[in-house]
Amino acid sequence: MSKTSLGNFFEDFALGQQIRHATPRTLTVGDASLYTALYGCRFAVQSSDFFAQSVGFERAPLDDLLIFHTVFGKTVPDISLNAVANLGYAACIFGVPVYCGDSLTARSEVIGLRENTNGKTGILYVRTTGENQKGEKVLSYVRWVMVRKSGGARAPDPVIPDLPKAVGVETLAPPDGFDAAGWDFELSGESWRWGDYAPGEKIDHVDGMTIEEAEHATATRLYQNTAKVHFNQHAESRGRFGRRLIYGGHVISLARALSFNGLANAFRIAAINGGRHVNPVFSGNTIHAWSEILERIEIPGNNALGALRVRTLATKDAPCAGHPDKDEYGKYPESVVLDLDYTVLLPR
Amino acid sequence: MSKTSLGNFFEDFALGQQIRHATPRTLTVGDASLYTALYGCRFAVQSSDFFAQSVGFERAPLDDLLIFHTVFGKTVPDISLNAVANLGYAACIFGVPVYCGDSLTARSEVIGLRENTNGKTGILYVRTTGENQKGEKVLSYVRWVMVRKSGGARAPDPVIPDLPKAVGVETLAPPDGFDAAGWDFELSGESWRWGDYAPGEKIDHVDGMTIEEAEHATATRLYQNTAKVHFNQHAESRGRFGRRLIYGGHVISLARALSFNGLANAFRIAAINGGRHVNPVFSGNTIHAWSEILERIEIPGNNALGALRVRTLATKDAPCAGHPDKDEYGKYPESVVLDLDYTVLLPR
Amino acid sequence: MSKTSLGNFFEDFALGQQIRHATPRTLTVGDASLYTALYGCRFAVQSSDFFAQSVGFERAPLDDLLIFHTVFGKTVPDISLNAVANLGYAACIFGVPVYCGDSLTARSEVIGLRENTNGKTGILYVRTTGENQKGEKVLSYVRWVMVRKSGGARAPDPVIPDLPKAVGVETLAPPDGFDAAGWDFELSGESWRWGDYAPGEKIDHVDGMTIEEAEHATATRLYQNTAKVHFNQHAESRGRFGRRLIYGGHVISLARALSFNGLANAFRIAAINGGRHVNPVFSGNTIHAWSEILERIEIPGNNALGALRVRTLATKDAPCAGHPDKDEYGKYPESVVLDLDYTVLLPR
Repeated sequence: MSKTSLGNFFEDFALGQQIRHATPRTLTVGDASLYTALYGCRFAVQSSDFFAQSVGFERAPLDDLLIFHTVFGKTVPDISLNAVANLGYAACIFGVPVYCGDSLTARSEVIGLRENTNGKTGILYVRTTGENQKGEKVLSYVRWVMVRKSGGARAPDPVIPDLPKAVGVETLAPPDGFDAAGWDFELSGESWRWGDYAPGEKIDHVDGMTIEEAEHATATRLYQNTAKVHFNQHAESRGRFGRRLIYGGHVISLARALSFNGLANAFRIAAINGGRHVNPVFSGNTIHAWSEILERIEIPGNNALGALRVRTLATKDAPCAGHPDKDEYGKYPESVVLDLDYTVLLPR
Repeated sequence: MSKTSLGNFFEDFALGQQIRHATPRTLTVGDASLYTALYGCRFAVQSSDFFAQSVGFERAPLDDLLIFHTVFGKTVPDISLNAVANLGYAACIFGVPVYCGDSLTARSEVIGLRENTNGKTGILYVRTTGENQKGEKVLSYVRWVMVRKSGGARAPDPVIPDLPKAVGVETLAPPDGFDAAGWDFELSGESWRWGDYAPGEKIDHVDGMTIEEAEHATATRLYQNTAKVHFNQHAESRGRFGRRLIYGGHVISLARALSFNGLANAFRIAAINGGRHVNPVFSGNTIHAWSEILERIEIPGNNALGALRVRTLATKDAPCAGHPDKDEYGKYPESVVLDLDYTVLLPR
Repeated sequence: MSKTSLGNFFEDFALGQQIRHATPRTLTVGDASLYTALYGCRFAVQSSDFFAQSVGFERAPLDDLLIFHTVFGKTVPDISLNAVANLGYAACIFGVPVYCGDSLTARSEVIGLRENTNGKTGILYVRTTGENQKGEKVLSYVRWVMVRKSGGARAPDPVIPDLPKAVGVETLAPPDGFDAAGWDFELSGESWRWGDYAPGEKIDHVDGMTIEEAEHATATRLYQNTAKVHFNQHAESRGRFGRRLIYGGHVISLARALSFNGLANAFRIAAINGGRHVNPVFSGNTIHAWSEILERIEIPGNNALGALRVRTLATKDAPCAGHPDKDEYGKYPESVVLDLDYTVLLPR
């Protein structure tokens, strides 16, 4: 029997199956520095122990998306090594803050399966959970992905999970003990509080960031994500695009970092309601982003924090002053690469 | 009102104005490792806790230029987002050593303003101070920069600050408790002490280092420096050079790292007397450097340490065996990119 | 006298000479994160403090090859700055585990010298030892390298050291207190124990990783390795290959990281018996690897661990499903770049 894994195919998954993923991972200040160096994030809570302590954290928590990428990366060898396409995310909730020194593990449950009519692929739905060394939940999300069949004939009855359009406010996990009085609006970079944003408001984040091969590959290795399309130019030169594809999460992190200009006080991602990578991104592309405020949400019993539901769109090689968006038929311009619906927390 | 900042224009500044900069930043061993990986520094005090403790430090302090870049980066969104050119530095003094875990903040005072006769730009002079979480000064420097006007008509009376040609020895802040007896001249890499250098001496640092886009962009993001010209190839392809410009501080750090070969025991930058970026640097350029010893300075009451005033010139794509320099009219060859006048400390 | 070192030439070495190398180095979680980001390693013991503690370590030890590269890098300014070729390694034994915060130093002894008949070069043999701040040995190895003469006439009597073909099992230093009962074969990524491997077994590690200039240069600077051929495109454009050569150790680390797929539980390199870089590697090359199990070795008195002697070959731009190897005359295909004979430890 071969010692080498070629990854799972669609037939290898069963409804209700539980998978514990390798490799456990201790995140450190080394990862935090690399994250800053890869994206140029400037959110004060994640940048300064002193600032974080002033508003009630033990010390600077790690960036929420670093947690997401780390947990996501662990699932790749089991879930998506034979994926044709990553179709979507939903119901993503961030749990307790993760601090340097915490050790994360990830596990997934198969919650849906539907073979495609072509008999060559199927849609797999998994709920993935990330936990720290104390067994506390740091992240939970649903992802669906189109996976190749290995040639088997089995066509299970389709099971498609019910997924919420947005994460309910009652399931958000705002950080305990947050103290808005300690928030310094000069040090944080902007004066806007939760109440200063209005639904319908559109914000062009102005700046652009060009991606190099060495950058996205370094990031994706940091997350121990093994998806082949990001790393192997020899194989990809013969593939669909002739070149390496950039990990979608890398683009999410760039868009989030760019969103600082206009959303500097949105210090925490509480949830990702849904997200789609609508066009591929390659090395050499310059990413811009803009956001639309979808909803202003009160957190019951919490006077220190409020939530904003935000939609951030990222583009390649196209500034966002005109807020490029999908058309009335739902079709995106070629320049738009990401449409992310998520919920952030701000001081009130 | 727009949530997004486009940066300040010349008219937005007033003499005596105080600016507290975002984002506060805790520096860590993660930043130290990245700094080593980006420049290949080999100074023993910054590389080894054990060595640093042998000469009287708590543990390895962070590289002086990492402190400079971090503090400088914070000023960019407020000071130089609309800068046409970074004109010079002066009176830069390094204060208490910065250790991993220290949290830095930066503030600036406007100390000079002079509108240019074209009515389109003006020269802004600021004194910037970096402090740690205890309020101790880690760095202070003056910088002047040409900033665009936004179109306003105001022409304030010009105020130009008096700036010293060099930082006086009495204002240097040599590290407390430095113990030259613990210095191991094998481990530090060279046998030369302070007294072994003579004014007029010229040193070719021999080695060259080529810069890649991913490297300077990663460095500049690590410093949370948001100057657009370094990051956005889409915009720069239509700009003056057709490509991204490399952050001048990146070149300073490379020159300093290269200077190890000949100045290995110059373990601390005490001051930067002045500095000019005399030609632009781009990805693909190979940096070499050479130095001239300008002055040997006794530090009053200190027998353990001495100071050297040094001028280091860096070139692109040109070795420095011939000590390329400006001509009698003050004109630099195209190959010279940096002329830095600074003061370093060595064991006596 | 010039302050600048041009490195040692063949005539500068004497049999029995002891060299203490600069620069001492404290390794940290920052270095560990960079190592992960550069190679994408997924070995559980090095990735998670929690996992490492479950099997008897204090916390996650640093990757063995990070130790090797760090110690090796220190020797370059003294040993191989004027090397024509790095000819081989032998008798490499890893000692006590290295943890974040440990400070390493390196020293070498000249154990062999043989001038070549052309009178222009000679072969230098050194035994290099790396130690932590407590004086404990973390690494010891022999390396031989062809070094240029500076033009001197001296031809010392040749002395060639006796070198073992493989490191004896009695000299291996398995980690104290290893507890196989705590090993979680789901979290580690594979179910294969020591006893599941058989001599003669061949494993294709499947995945490929493309190398960028910024990646290998960043890695090599992290190791404070100053070999000119890796960094100076201006000089190398006029050199033998017209471009920068990739540090052989970078390829070893990539091959080791790729070997996770098939050798996930080989958590520790105990020894390197021998190694050769048989073809040059450049930026843009994609590295694949395969391994052959040479020997299954019992460690006397140790029921928790067993050793495997493994040969791992790496290729450029060629997948390894066919196990490309040298031919009956010992000649390697152009695609093969590395042939490494080493000994790893696995739980029994």
